[in-house]
Amino acid sequence: MRVAVIVAAAGVGRRMGTELPKTYLPLAGRPILAHTLAVLEAAAEVHEAAVVVHPRDLDYCREQVIAPFGFAKVRHLAAGGKERQDSVRKALEALRRGPAPDLILVHDGVRPLVTVELIRRVIDGATEHGAVIPTLPAQDTVKRVNARGEVVETLDRRELRLVQTPQGFRADLLFRAFDEAHRRGFYGTDEASLVEALGVPVVVVPGSPANIKVTTPEDLLLAEALLAVREKRDDAGRPGI
Amino acid sequence: MRVAVIVAAAGVGRRMGTELPKTYLPLAGRPILAHTLAVLEAAAEVHEAAVVVHPRDLDYCREQVIAPFGFAKVRHLAAGGKERQDSVRKALEALRRGPAPDLILVHDGVRPLVTVELIRRVIDGATEHGAVIPTLPAQDTVKRVNARGEVVETLDRRELRLVQTPQGFRADLLFRAFDEAHRRGFYGTDEASLVEALGVPVVVVPGSPANIKVTTPEDLLLAEALLAVREKRDDAGRPGI
Repeated sequence: MRVAVIVAAAGVGRRMGTELPKTYLPLAGRPILAHTLAVLEAAAEVHEAAVVVHPRDLDYCREQVIAPFGFAKVRHLAAGGKERQDSVRKALEALRRGPAPDLILVHDGVRPLVTVELIRRVIDGATEHGAVIPTLPAQDTVKRVNARGEVVETLDRRELRLVQTPQGFRADLLFRAFDEAHRRGFYGTDEASLVEALGVPVVVVPGSPANIKVTTPEDLLLAEALLAVREKRDDAGRPGI
Repeated sequence: MRVAVIVAAAGVGRRMGTELPKTYLPLAGRPILAHTLAVLEAAAEVHEAAVVVHPRDLDYCREQVIAPFGFAKVRHLAAGGKERQDSVRKALEALRRGPAPDLILVHDGVRPLVTVELIRRVIDGATEHGAVIPTLPAQDTVKRVNARGEVVETLDRRELRLVQTPQGFRADLLFRAFDEAHRRGFYGTDEASLVEALGVPVVVVPGSPANIKVTTPEDLLLAEALLAVREKRDDAGRPGI
Protein backbone atom coordinates (compact mmCIF):
# COMPACT_ATOMS: atom_id res chain seq x y z
CA MET A 1 0.00 0.00 0.00
CA ARG A 2 1.38 3.34 -1.11
CA VAL A 3 1.08 6.28 1.33
CA ALA A 4 1.71 9.92 0.40
CA VAL A 5 1.79 12.79 2.88
CA ILE A 6 0.95 16.37 1.95
CA VAL A 7 2.65 18.87 4.24
CA ALA A 8 0.83 22.21 4.31
CA ALA A 9 3.46 24.86 5.05
CA ALA A 10 2.34 27.88 3.04
CA GLY A 11 1.06 29.89 6.02
CA VAL A 12 2.72 33.25 6.59
CA GLY A 13 2.40 33.11 10.37
CA ARG A 14 1.38 36.68 11.18
CA ARG A 15 0.90 35.84 14.85
CA MET A 16 4.61 35.23 15.45
CA GLY A 17 5.59 38.85 14.86
CA THR A 18 8.70 37.74 12.95
CA GLU A 19 9.99 38.31 9.39
CA LEU A 20 10.53 34.62 8.72
CA PRO A 21 7.33 32.56 8.26
CA LYS A 22 6.72 30.42 11.32
CA THR A 23 7.42 27.23 9.37
CA TYR A 24 11.13 28.14 9.22
CA LEU A 25 11.63 29.45 12.75
CA PRO A 26 14.27 27.55 14.70
CA LEU A 27 13.12 24.94 17.20
CA ALA A 28 15.94 23.33 19.16
CA GLY A 29 18.35 24.61 16.48
CA ARG A 30 16.49 23.34 13.39
CA PRO A 31 13.66 24.85 11.35
CA ILE A 32 10.23 23.74 12.59
CA LEU A 33 9.50 22.19 9.19
CA ALA A 34 12.70 20.11 9.38
CA HIS A 35 11.42 18.46 12.56
CA THR A 36 8.14 17.65 10.85
CA LEU A 37 9.82 16.18 7.76
CA ALA A 38 12.24 14.16 9.89
CA VAL A 39 9.29 12.28 11.42
CA LEU A 40 7.94 11.45 7.95
CA GLU A 41 11.41 10.19 6.95
CA ALA A 42 11.41 7.97 10.02
CA ALA A 43 7.96 6.49 9.34
CA ALA A 44 8.56 3.37 7.22
CA GLU A 45 4.90 3.37 6.11
CA VAL A 46 5.27 6.73 4.33
CA HIS A 47 6.52 6.54 0.73
CA GLU A 48 6.56 10.15 -0.40
CA ALA A 49 5.85 13.68 0.75
CA ALA A 50 4.55 16.69 -1.14
CA VAL A 51 5.41 19.96 0.60
CA VAL A 52 3.48 23.14 -0.20
CA VAL A 53 5.09 26.46 0.71
CA HIS A 54 4.50 30.11 -0.01
CA PRO A 55 5.55 30.86 -3.66
CA ARG A 56 8.11 33.36 -2.33
CA ASP A 57 9.75 30.66 -0.16
CA LEU A 58 10.31 27.88 -2.74
CA ASP A 59 14.07 28.47 -2.98
CA TYR A 60 14.46 29.11 0.73
CA CYS A 61 12.71 25.87 1.63
CA ARG A 62 14.71 23.86 -0.93
CA GLU A 63 18.06 25.32 0.14
CA GLN A 64 17.57 25.73 3.88
CA VAL A 65 15.38 22.78 4.80
CA ILE A 66 15.11 20.01 2.23
CA ALA A 67 18.66 19.91 0.81
CA PRO A 68 20.72 20.37 4.03
CA PHE A 69 18.80 17.70 5.95
CA GLY A 70 18.60 15.33 2.97
CA PHE A 71 14.90 14.58 3.10
CA ALA A 72 14.70 11.91 0.41
CA LYS A 73 10.92 11.37 0.61
CA VAL A 74 10.07 14.92 -0.49
CA ARG A 75 9.27 14.26 -4.16
CA HIS A 76 7.23 17.40 -4.72
CA LEU A 77 7.73 20.99 -3.61
CA ALA A 78 4.76 23.05 -4.72
CA ALA A 79 3.87 26.75 -4.55
CA GLY A 80 0.84 27.34 -2.34
CA GLY A 81 -2.35 29.19 -3.26
CA LYS A 82 -4.44 31.84 -1.58
CA GLU A 83 -6.10 29.65 1.04
CA ARG A 84 -4.88 26.46 2.70
CA GLN A 85 -7.35 24.49 0.62
CA ASP A 86 -5.90 25.94 -2.59
CA SER A 87 -2.43 24.93 -1.40
CA VAL A 88 -3.44 21.37 -0.60
CA ARG A 89 -5.16 21.15 -3.99
CA LYS A 90 -1.87 22.08 -5.68
CA ALA A 91 -0.13 19.26 -3.82
CA LEU A 92 -2.89 16.87 -4.90
CA GLU A 93 -2.31 17.90 -8.52
CA ALA A 94 1.39 17.11 -8.09
CA LEU A 95 0.55 13.69 -6.62
CA ARG A 96 -1.85 13.01 -9.51
CA ARG A 97 1.05 13.22 -11.94
CA GLY A 98 3.11 10.55 -10.12
CA PRO A 99 2.47 6.92 -9.09
CA ALA A 100 -1.06 6.70 -7.64
CA PRO A 101 -1.08 6.57 -3.82
CA ASP A 102 -3.65 4.41 -2.01
CA LEU A 103 -3.79 6.69 1.01
CA ILE A 104 -3.09 10.40 1.38
CA LEU A 105 -2.38 12.06 4.72
CA VAL A 106 -2.47 15.83 5.08
CA HIS A 107 -0.35 17.32 7.86
CA ASP A 108 0.34 20.83 9.15
CA GLY A 109 3.99 21.80 8.66
CA VAL A 110 3.87 23.57 12.03
CA ARG A 111 3.02 20.40 13.98
CA PRO A 112 6.63 19.25 14.44
CA LEU A 113 5.88 17.02 17.44
CA VAL A 114 3.88 14.49 15.46
CA THR A 115 5.10 10.94 16.09
CA VAL A 116 5.56 7.86 13.96
CA GLU A 117 3.07 6.16 16.26
CA LEU A 118 0.36 8.75 15.50
CA ILE A 119 1.06 8.51 11.76
CA ARG A 120 0.58 4.72 11.99
CA ARG A 121 -2.69 5.14 13.86
CA VAL A 122 -4.00 7.46 11.15
CA ILE A 123 -2.86 5.11 8.37
CA ASP A 124 -4.54 2.15 10.08
CA GLY A 125 -7.71 4.18 10.63
CA ALA A 126 -7.86 5.46 7.06
CA THR A 127 -7.34 1.93 5.74
CA GLU A 128 -10.28 0.72 7.81
CA HIS A 129 -12.68 3.67 7.59
CA GLY A 130 -11.66 5.65 4.49
CA ALA A 131 -11.40 8.99 6.30
CA VAL A 132 -10.04 9.62 9.82
CA ILE A 133 -8.90 12.56 11.90
CA PRO A 134 -6.85 12.47 15.12
CA THR A 135 -8.63 14.35 17.88
CA LEU A 136 -8.40 15.17 21.57
CA PRO A 137 -11.32 15.58 23.95
CA ALA A 138 -12.03 19.18 24.89
CA GLN A 139 -10.51 19.56 28.38
CA ASP A 140 -11.89 23.04 28.81
CA THR A 141 -15.44 24.27 28.64
CA VAL A 142 -16.13 25.61 25.13
CA LYS A 143 -18.46 28.55 24.52
CA ARG A 144 -19.72 30.42 21.49
CA VAL A 145 -19.38 34.20 21.69
CA ASN A 146 -20.80 37.08 19.66
CA ALA A 147 -18.88 39.98 18.08
CA ARG A 148 -19.11 41.94 21.36
CA GLY A 149 -17.27 39.20 23.27
CA GLU A 150 -20.38 38.05 25.12
CA VAL A 151 -21.17 34.39 25.62
CA VAL A 152 -24.13 33.21 23.56
CA GLU A 153 -23.93 29.47 24.26
CA THR A 154 -22.11 26.92 26.42
CA LEU A 155 -21.57 23.82 24.27
CA ASP A 156 -21.88 20.24 25.48
CA ARG A 157 -18.23 19.38 25.93
CA ARG A 158 -18.79 15.62 25.79
CA GLU A 159 -19.69 15.87 22.10
CA LEU A 160 -16.70 18.05 21.14
CA ARG A 161 -13.32 17.05 19.77
CA LEU A 162 -10.28 19.23 19.06
CA VAL A 163 -8.93 18.25 15.67
CA GLN A 164 -5.25 17.68 14.88
CA THR A 165 -3.37 16.48 11.84
CA PRO A 166 -2.33 14.29 10.05
CA GLN A 167 -5.80 13.67 8.67
CA GLY A 168 -5.88 10.47 6.61
CA PHE A 169 -7.97 9.50 3.60
CA ARG A 170 -8.32 6.91 0.88
CA ALA A 171 -6.77 8.73 -2.09
CA ASP A 172 -9.81 8.35 -4.39
CA LEU A 173 -12.08 9.80 -1.70
CA LEU A 174 -9.84 12.82 -1.08
CA PHE A 175 -9.49 13.55 -4.81
CA ARG A 176 -13.27 13.36 -5.16
CA ALA A 177 -13.84 15.63 -2.13
CA PHE A 178 -11.45 18.29 -3.49
CA ASP A 179 -12.85 18.08 -7.03
CA GLU A 180 -16.38 18.50 -5.73
CA ALA A 181 -15.45 21.39 -3.40
CA HIS A 182 -13.63 23.12 -6.25
CA ARG A 183 -16.61 22.67 -8.59
CA ARG A 184 -18.97 24.14 -5.97
CA GLY A 185 -16.58 26.86 -4.74
CA PHE A 186 -16.85 25.41 -1.22
CA TYR A 187 -14.11 26.18 1.32
CA GLY A 188 -13.76 24.12 4.50
CA THR A 189 -11.70 24.68 7.64
CA ASP A 190 -9.86 21.38 7.17
CA GLU A 191 -9.61 18.56 4.65
CA ALA A 192 -12.07 16.35 6.52
CA SER A 193 -14.81 18.97 6.16
CA LEU A 194 -14.66 18.50 2.37
CA VAL A 195 -15.21 14.77 2.83
CA GLU A 196 -18.02 15.49 5.30
CA ALA A 197 -19.60 17.69 2.60
CA LEU A 198 -19.84 14.57 0.40
CA GLY A 199 -21.91 12.91 3.12
CA VAL A 200 -19.14 10.35 3.73
CA PRO A 201 -18.55 9.51 7.42
CA VAL A 202 -15.30 10.79 8.94
CA VAL A 203 -14.15 8.82 11.99
CA VAL A 204 -12.05 10.07 14.90
CA VAL A 205 -8.94 8.34 16.28
CA PRO A 206 -7.05 9.44 19.40
CA GLY A 207 -4.61 12.30 18.78
CA SER A 208 -1.55 13.11 20.85
CA PRO A 209 -1.54 15.89 23.49
CA ALA A 210 2.03 16.85 22.52
CA ASN A 211 1.15 17.21 18.82
CA ILE A 212 0.61 20.95 19.15
CA LYS A 213 0.30 23.48 16.34
CA VAL A 214 3.08 26.06 16.72
CA THR A 215 1.44 29.41 15.95
CA THR A 216 2.50 31.78 18.76
CA PRO A 217 5.76 32.50 20.64
CA GLU A 218 4.27 30.66 23.64
CA ASP A 219 3.70 27.59 21.47
CA LEU A 220 7.34 27.70 20.40
CA LEU A 221 8.48 27.70 24.04
CA LEU A 222 6.11 24.86 24.74
CA ALA A 223 7.40 22.88 21.76
CA GLU A 224 10.99 23.35 22.97
CA ALA A 225 10.00 22.13 26.42
CA LEU A 226 8.14 19.12 25.05
CA LEU A 227 11.07 18.19 22.80
CA ALA A 228 13.42 18.39 25.80
CA VAL A 229 11.16 16.10 27.83
CA ARG A 230 10.84 13.71 24.91
CA GLU A 231 14.59 13.48 24.44
CA LYS A 232 15.10 12.84 28.14
CA ARG A 233 12.51 10.06 27.98
CA ASP A 234 14.07 8.58 24.85
CA ASP A 235 17.43 8.44 26.66
CA ALA A 236 15.80 6.60 29.53
CA GLY A 237 14.27 4.11 27.11
CA ARG A 238 10.74 4.95 28.16
CA PRO A 239 7.93 5.74 25.76
CA GLY A 240 7.91 9.32 24.52
CA ILE A 241 5.14 11.86 24.72
CA MET B 1 -13.05 46.28 47.40
CA ARG B 2 -13.00 42.84 48.95
CA VAL B 3 -12.08 39.87 46.72
CA ALA B 4 -12.56 36.22 47.68
CA VAL B 5 -11.33 33.26 45.63
CA ILE B 6 -12.95 29.83 45.73
CA VAL B 7 -10.52 27.07 44.82
CA ALA B 8 -12.29 23.96 43.52
CA ALA B 9 -10.07 21.01 44.42
CA ALA B 10 -12.50 18.21 45.21
CA GLY B 11 -11.97 16.25 41.98
CA VAL B 12 -10.71 12.72 42.35
CA GLY B 13 -8.67 12.72 39.16
CA ARG B 14 -9.37 9.30 37.77
CA ARG B 15 -7.42 10.05 34.58
CA MET B 16 -4.07 10.23 36.36
CA GLY B 17 -4.06 6.54 37.28
CA THR B 18 -2.65 7.35 40.72
CA GLU B 19 -3.83 6.74 44.30
CA LEU B 20 -3.40 10.38 45.33
CA PRO B 21 -5.98 12.80 43.86
CA LYS B 22 -4.35 14.91 41.13
CA THR B 23 -4.61 18.06 43.25
CA TYR B 24 -1.89 16.72 45.55
CA LEU B 25 0.49 15.22 42.98
CA PRO B 26 3.97 16.74 43.10
CA LEU B 27 4.86 19.37 40.52
CA ALA B 28 8.48 20.58 40.74
CA GLY B 29 8.60 19.14 44.27
CA ARG B 30 5.42 20.72 45.66
CA PRO B 31 1.78 19.61 45.53
CA ILE B 32 -0.05 21.08 42.51
CA LEU B 33 -2.50 22.81 44.87
CA ALA B 34 0.37 24.50 46.72
CA HIS B 35 1.47 26.19 43.49
CA THR B 36 -2.07 27.43 42.91
CA LEU B 37 -2.43 28.79 46.45
CA ALA B 38 1.00 30.44 46.28
CA VAL B 39 -0.20 32.60 43.37
CA LEU B 40 -3.27 33.69 45.36
CA GLU B 41 -1.00 34.59 48.29
CA ALA B 42 1.12 36.69 45.95
CA ALA B 43 -1.85 38.57 44.47
CA ALA B 44 -2.30 41.67 46.64
CA GLU B 45 -5.86 42.15 45.33
CA VAL B 46 -7.01 38.82 46.83
CA HIS B 47 -8.18 38.99 50.46
CA GLU B 48 -9.24 35.46 51.22
CA ALA B 49 -9.51 31.99 49.74
CA ALA B 50 -12.00 29.20 50.34
CA VAL B 51 -10.66 25.79 49.34
CA VAL B 52 -13.03 22.89 48.69
CA VAL B 53 -11.58 19.39 48.79
CA HIS B 54 -12.91 15.85 48.86
CA PRO B 55 -14.36 15.12 52.36
CA ARG B 56 -11.83 12.30 52.73
CA ASP B 57 -8.92 14.70 52.10
CA LEU B 58 -9.70 17.49 54.62
CA ASP B 59 -6.95 16.47 57.05
CA TYR B 60 -4.48 15.66 54.29
CA CYS B 61 -4.94 19.06 52.65
CA ARG B 62 -4.68 20.91 55.97
CA GLU B 63 -1.57 19.02 57.09
CA GLN B 64 0.26 18.53 53.79
CA VAL B 65 -0.57 21.71 51.87
CA ILE B 66 -2.03 24.58 53.88
CA ALA B 67 -0.05 24.30 57.14
CA PRO B 68 3.44 23.50 55.79
CA PHE B 69 3.39 26.30 53.23
CA GLY B 70 1.73 28.78 55.60
CA PHE B 71 -1.06 29.93 53.28
CA ALA B 72 -2.52 32.72 55.40
CA LYS B 73 -5.32 33.68 53.01
CA VAL B 74 -7.05 30.30 53.21
CA ARG B 75 -9.82 31.19 55.70
CA HIS B 76 -12.12 28.31 54.78
CA LEU B 77 -11.47 24.66 54.04
CA ALA B 78 -14.73 22.99 53.05
CA ALA B 79 -15.77 19.43 52.24
CA GLY B 80 -16.89 19.12 48.62
CA GLY B 81 -20.15 17.69 47.34
CA LYS B 82 -21.11 15.25 44.64
CA GLU B 83 -20.58 17.51 41.62
CA ARG B 84 -18.26 20.47 41.16
CA GLN B 85 -21.23 22.80 41.42
CA ASP B 86 -22.20 21.30 44.79
CA SER B 87 -18.64 21.84 45.99
CA VAL B 88 -18.53 25.47 44.90
CA ARG B 89 -21.91 26.02 46.58
CA LYS B 90 -20.44 24.77 49.86
CA ALA B 91 -17.63 27.29 49.55
CA LEU B 92 -20.18 30.02 48.85
CA GLU B 93 -22.01 29.07 52.05
CA ALA B 94 -18.76 29.41 53.96
CA LEU B 95 -18.14 32.85 52.44
CA ARG B 96 -21.70 33.91 53.32
CA ARG B 97 -20.91 33.44 57.00
CA GLY B 98 -17.88 35.80 56.89
CA PRO B 99 -17.35 39.45 55.83
CA ALA B 100 -19.24 40.02 52.57
CA PRO B 101 -16.96 40.00 49.51
CA ASP B 102 -17.61 42.38 46.59
CA LEU B 103 -16.18 40.02 44.01
CA ILE B 104 -15.83 36.26 43.99
CA LEU B 105 -13.44 34.41 41.70
CA VAL B 106 -13.72 30.66 41.19
CA HIS B 107 -10.54 28.84 40.20
CA ASP B 108 -9.60 25.23 39.43
CA GLY B 109 -7.13 23.87 41.99
CA VAL B 110 -5.40 22.00 39.15
CA ARG B 111 -4.53 25.17 37.21
CA PRO B 112 -1.28 25.87 39.07
CA LEU B 113 0.19 28.07 36.33
CA VAL B 114 -2.30 30.89 36.81
CA THR B 115 -0.54 34.25 37.18
CA VAL B 116 -1.12 37.35 39.30
CA GLU B 117 -1.52 39.24 36.02
CA LEU B 118 -4.40 37.02 34.89
CA ILE B 119 -6.07 37.29 38.31
CA ARG B 120 -5.90 41.10 37.99
CA ARG B 121 -7.39 41.00 34.50
CA VAL B 122 -10.32 38.94 35.78
CA ILE B 123 -10.83 41.24 38.79
CA ASP B 124 -10.80 44.31 36.53
CA GLY B 125 -13.19 42.68 34.10
CA ALA B 126 -15.61 41.53 36.79
CA THR B 127 -15.59 45.01 38.31
CA GLU B 128 -16.53 46.49 34.95
CA HIS B 129 -18.89 43.83 33.55
CA GLY B 130 -20.18 41.87 36.55
CA ALA B 131 -19.26 38.45 35.11
CA VAL B 132 -16.14 37.54 33.12
CA ILE B 133 -14.32 34.42 32.02
CA PRO B 134 -10.74 34.15 30.70
CA THR B 135 -10.70 32.39 27.35
CA LEU B 136 -8.39 31.42 24.51
CA PRO B 137 -9.28 31.27 20.83
CA ALA B 138 -9.68 27.72 19.50
CA GLN B 139 -6.42 27.05 17.63
CA ASP B 140 -7.64 23.73 16.34
CA THR B 141 -10.68 22.89 14.28
CA VAL B 142 -13.49 21.80 16.61
CA LYS B 143 -16.04 19.17 15.60
CA ARG B 144 -19.06 17.56 17.17
CA VAL B 145 -19.11 13.76 17.10
CA ASN B 146 -21.77 11.15 17.75
CA ALA B 147 -21.54 8.13 20.06
CA ARG B 148 -19.97 6.07 17.23
CA GLY B 149 -17.05 8.52 16.93
CA GLU B 150 -18.26 9.92 13.61
CA VAL B 151 -18.17 13.63 12.86
CA VAL B 152 -21.62 15.21 12.77
CA GLU B 153 -20.62 18.88 12.46
CA THR B 154 -17.58 21.12 11.94
CA LEU B 155 -18.11 24.22 14.09
CA ASP B 156 -17.22 27.77 13.08
CA ARG B 157 -13.97 28.22 14.93
CA ARG B 158 -14.08 32.01 14.88
CA GLU B 159 -17.04 31.98 17.26
CA LEU B 160 -15.51 29.52 19.73
CA ARG B 161 -13.55 30.19 22.90
CA LEU B 162 -11.84 27.69 25.22
CA VAL B 163 -12.71 28.64 28.76
CA GLN B 164 -10.20 28.80 31.63
CA THR B 165 -10.43 29.88 35.24
CA PRO B 166 -10.45 32.01 37.38
CA GLN B 167 -13.93 33.08 36.41
CA GLY B 168 -14.88 36.34 38.14
CA PHE B 169 -18.25 37.65 39.33
CA ARG B 170 -19.85 40.36 41.39
CA ALA B 171 -20.63 38.47 44.60
CA ASP B 172 -24.36 39.27 44.63
CA LEU B 173 -24.70 38.00 41.05
CA LEU B 174 -22.90 34.72 41.78
CA PHE B 175 -24.97 34.09 44.94
CA ARG B 176 -28.14 34.75 42.94
CA ALA B 177 -27.02 32.45 40.10
CA PHE B 178 -26.26 29.58 42.51
CA ASP B 179 -29.48 30.08 44.50
CA GLU B 180 -31.52 30.02 41.31
CA ALA B 181 -29.72 26.97 39.89
CA HIS B 182 -30.20 25.13 43.20
CA ARG B 183 -33.90 26.01 43.28
CA ARG B 184 -34.35 24.72 39.72
CA GLY B 185 -32.04 21.72 40.08
CA PHE B 186 -29.96 23.05 37.15
CA TYR B 187 -26.37 21.89 36.74
CA GLY B 188 -23.93 23.79 34.51
CA THR B 189 -20.47 22.86 33.24
CA ASP B 190 -18.93 25.93 34.84
CA GLU B 191 -19.93 28.82 37.12
CA ALA B 192 -20.51 31.23 34.24
CA SER B 193 -23.18 28.95 32.77
CA LEU B 194 -25.29 29.53 35.90
CA VAL B 195 -25.01 33.28 35.36
CA GLU B 196 -25.85 32.81 31.67
CA ALA B 197 -28.96 30.90 32.75
CA LEU B 198 -30.14 34.10 34.52
CA GLY B 199 -29.94 35.91 31.17
CA VAL B 200 -27.09 38.09 32.46
CA PRO B 201 -24.29 38.72 29.90
CA VAL B 202 -20.96 37.02 30.59
CA VAL B 203 -17.98 38.74 28.94
CA VAL B 204 -14.72 37.15 27.83
CA VAL B 205 -11.23 38.45 28.68
CA PRO B 206 -7.97 37.03 27.29
CA GLY B 207 -6.76 33.94 29.14
CA SER B 208 -3.18 32.69 29.30
CA PRO B 209 -1.89 29.85 27.08
CA ALA B 210 0.23 28.52 29.95
CA ASN B 211 -2.73 28.38 32.36
CA ILE B 212 -3.38 24.72 31.62
CA LYS B 213 -5.60 22.34 33.57
CA VAL B 214 -3.49 19.45 34.82
CA THR B 215 -5.59 16.34 34.32
CA THR B 216 -3.36 13.77 32.62
CA PRO B 217 0.25 12.60 33.08
CA GLU B 218 1.12 14.50 29.85
CA ASP B 219 -0.30 17.70 31.37
CA LEU B 220 1.92 17.20 34.39
CA LEU B 221 5.02 16.94 32.18
CA LEU B 222 3.90 20.01 30.29
CA ALA B 223 3.35 21.93 33.53
CA GLU B 224 6.86 21.00 34.71
CA ALA B 225 8.30 22.21 31.41
CA LEU B 226 6.33 25.46 31.52
CA LEU B 227 7.38 26.12 35.11
CA ALA B 228 11.04 25.56 34.13
CA VAL B 229 10.73 28.03 31.24
CA ARG B 230 8.98 30.54 33.48
CA GLU B 231 11.70 30.34 36.13
CA LYS B 232 14.40 30.80 33.52
CA ARG B 233 12.59 33.88 32.18
CA ASP B 234 12.08 35.28 35.66
CA ASP B 235 15.81 34.97 36.28
CA ALA B 236 16.47 36.92 33.10
CA GLY B 237 14.09 39.63 34.22
CA ARG B 238 11.83 39.15 31.20
CA PRO B 239 8.08 38.73 31.42
CA GLY B 240 6.98 35.17 32.19
CA ILE B 241 4.57 33.00 30.26
